[in-house]
Amino acid sequence: MASMIFSECSTARLLPLRCHRSCPALSFSRRVSLPLTSSRLFLPSLTFQPRASSTSVSATMATESSAKVIDGKAVAKQIREEIGVEIARMKEAIGIVPGLAVILVGDRKDSATYVRNKKKACDAVGINSFEVHLPEDTTEQEVLNSISRFNEDPSVHGILVQLPLPSHMNEEKILNAVGIEKDVDGFHPLNIGRLAMRGREPLFVPCTPKGCIELLRRYGIQIKGKKAVVIGRSNIVGMPAALLLQREDATVTIVHSRTNNPEDIIKEADIIISAVGQANMVRGSWIKPGAAIIDVGINPVEDPASPRGYRLVGDVCYDEVVKVASAVTPVPGGVGPMTIAMLLSNTLSSAKRMHNFN
Amino acid sequence: MASMIFSECSTARLLPLRCHRSCPALSFSRRVSLPLTSSRLFLPSLTFQPRASSTSVSATMATESSAKVIDGKAVAKQIREEIGVEIARMKEAIGIVPGLAVILVGDRKDSATYVRNKKKACDAVGINSFEVHLPEDTTEQEVLNSISRFNEDPSVHGILVQLPLPSHMNEEKILNAVGIEKDVDGFHPLNIGRLAMRGREPLFVPCTPKGCIELLRRYGIQIKGKKAVVIGRSNIVGMPAALLLQREDATVTIVHSRTNNPEDIIKEADIIISAVGQANMVRGSWIKPGAAIIDVGINPVEDPASPRGYRLVGDVCYDEVVKVASAVTPVPGGVGPMTIAMLLSNTLSSAKRMHNFN
Repeated sequence: MASMIFSECSTARLLPLRCHRSCPALSFSRRVSLPLTSSRLFLPSLTFQPRASSTSVSATMATESSAKVIDGKAVAKQIREEIGVEIARMKEAIGIVPGLAVILVGDRKDSATYVRNKKKACDAVGINSFEVHLPEDTTEQEVLNSISRFNEDPSVHGILVQLPLPSHMNEEKILNAVGIEKDVDGFHPLNIGRLAMRGREPLFVPCTPKGCIELLRRYGIQIKGKKAVVIGRSNIVGMPAALLLQREDATVTIVHSRTNNPEDIIKEADIIISAVGQANMVRGSWIKPGAAIIDVGINPVEDPASPRGYRLVGDVCYDEVVKVASAVTPVPGGVGPMTIAMLLSNTLSSAKRMHNFN
Repeated sequence: MASMIFSECSTARLLPLRCHRSCPALSFSRRVSLPLTSSRLFLPSLTFQPRASSTSVSATMATESSAKVIDGKAVAKQIREEIGVEIARMKEAIGIVPGLAVILVGDRKDSATYVRNKKKACDAVGINSFEVHLPEDTTEQEVLNSISRFNEDPSVHGILVQLPLPSHMNEEKILNAVGIEKDVDGFHPLNIGRLAMRGREPLFVPCTPKGCIELLRRYGIQIKGKKAVVIGRSNIVGMPAALLLQREDATVTIVHSRTNNPEDIIKEADIIISAVGQANMVRGSWIKPGAAIIDVGINPVEDPASPRGYRLVGDVCYDEVVKVASAVTPVPGGVGPMTIAMLLSNTLSSAKRMHNFN
């Protein structure tokens, strides 16, 4: 799909198949007013309808936009609050709090940041966090030993191995060592198999695709009977997202790098989940009017105006599709915040299951 | 999809959305001449192109037909011969032959017939077959004990529990008891998970969907980059067939009972695998000219002219689609014979893997 990859899009003047180099108005500073009521987690009936835009959106944007902005940051906040309430209830009732263990190998700055953010999120909701930080040149056996200890530890309900691992390690072997009942990432093939099978239930649903579906649910976007297209077929997002949509009775097509004329297929979709990692690839002209779009991509693009020299954009050319779609997630502030919220949710579910607490 | 189900179709006069009650010319007596050369099993490059029709097809049919008839019976025969050669080679080299154990519970005549056919097929290629036949009122524990014994037995390389089980048994629990390395049916969720994941390999691919893909391969029908539609999302055919097509780089859509206007989606497909169990549901008008169609359905329909009072038809209105498609499997004689051939193939693969024989 290389020929369809575009690094930039423009809100100013749109050309059908080319984008301008600047997108200055697109700062995702929209604020959405949400009824953040406490409630039980993830019930399909629990939906809300935020208003499409607010005073922080410029007049130009407000005129041009028609899509609801799916505010993942606000939804994730609400979910974290709900989780906090549940954890307090659990602690009060049985004196147990969920525990999440993270294993970090090496000194990648981005990995360290992710792990720090997870720890912060755990602290905020009352999940105990455990961390093992091993040096880059540690042996595979040492990582396996850490996993084994956490598998045995009854105060740990979820185990996460921060990826990527150093290249001298067998990632599959290490991930498979995580006990299935503590695999809060949901990447174990046994979990994926159960996700694919009708009448079977996975112990955990992978966090990012679970977050995508949760956004659709909470915004009252019907999935059953709808045509859904997932762009990208990765093990961690695209494939499980397609399986989840199928479980919700959508008619699902996965579009991937070998698909001919993907835009023709995408144009038919009522729901689009894009997880391909190509900045601004999905154009406004590819979207059926009224479609709902969940953009999982987080792609850095050059931006001399930014203090960091780059900014983050999604797979979707946001300022084009916002005029065509009925609902769309921004990047950042869409799916991103949901992933950690779903990790906390999976850890809570795991602790509830282990202690038979409902 | 009840409104689209038709029990009969006609070769005589076709109406766009209704079928006549009789289909007398359709006896599936076509014979296809095949170059049945011995070769290694299931190489993608191993394809042949049988001629479309032969002298046994009536003049009317020959004039009307355009599709190649995908002769599953002949392909299955060729595969069984290839398996026989491999088993002889294995026996000669290491003195081991594959063993398949079948557990049958109760007195269902159809199940008994299937088991008998499997035994015959094993005998013909040189696979040792083992059978346990338990009474209808046997306990779940007795079935589990039989499975356990076969799991331990080194002369058994594949274990099959004939379904359906009596209603007082937990099918999931029993199927999960079959050791993953002997699960030649490939239904274990761990196998399905590996099938779904890129970069992972299932130990076994479920027999019927494997047979579908094998027919496409051996008839030289390209899958990569094509649009494929799977009709039906069962755990044993539709879902794994979709995963297999996706592994082969098709762009796959699963159509199911909650799909709106399935015919519009089916009409876009280059490859159709139908596994829905509705006689003659898929009409000629639903097919893109030149599509390849694999019909997994085996549906009995009333037929006073038949000695048994019924005959078997597929999900696809054969005599309509044969005029539009480029290739189509008949029912019977299409996918059916492939399922047992693939079971033999999985049993051979299992024995080779366990004894490290290539």
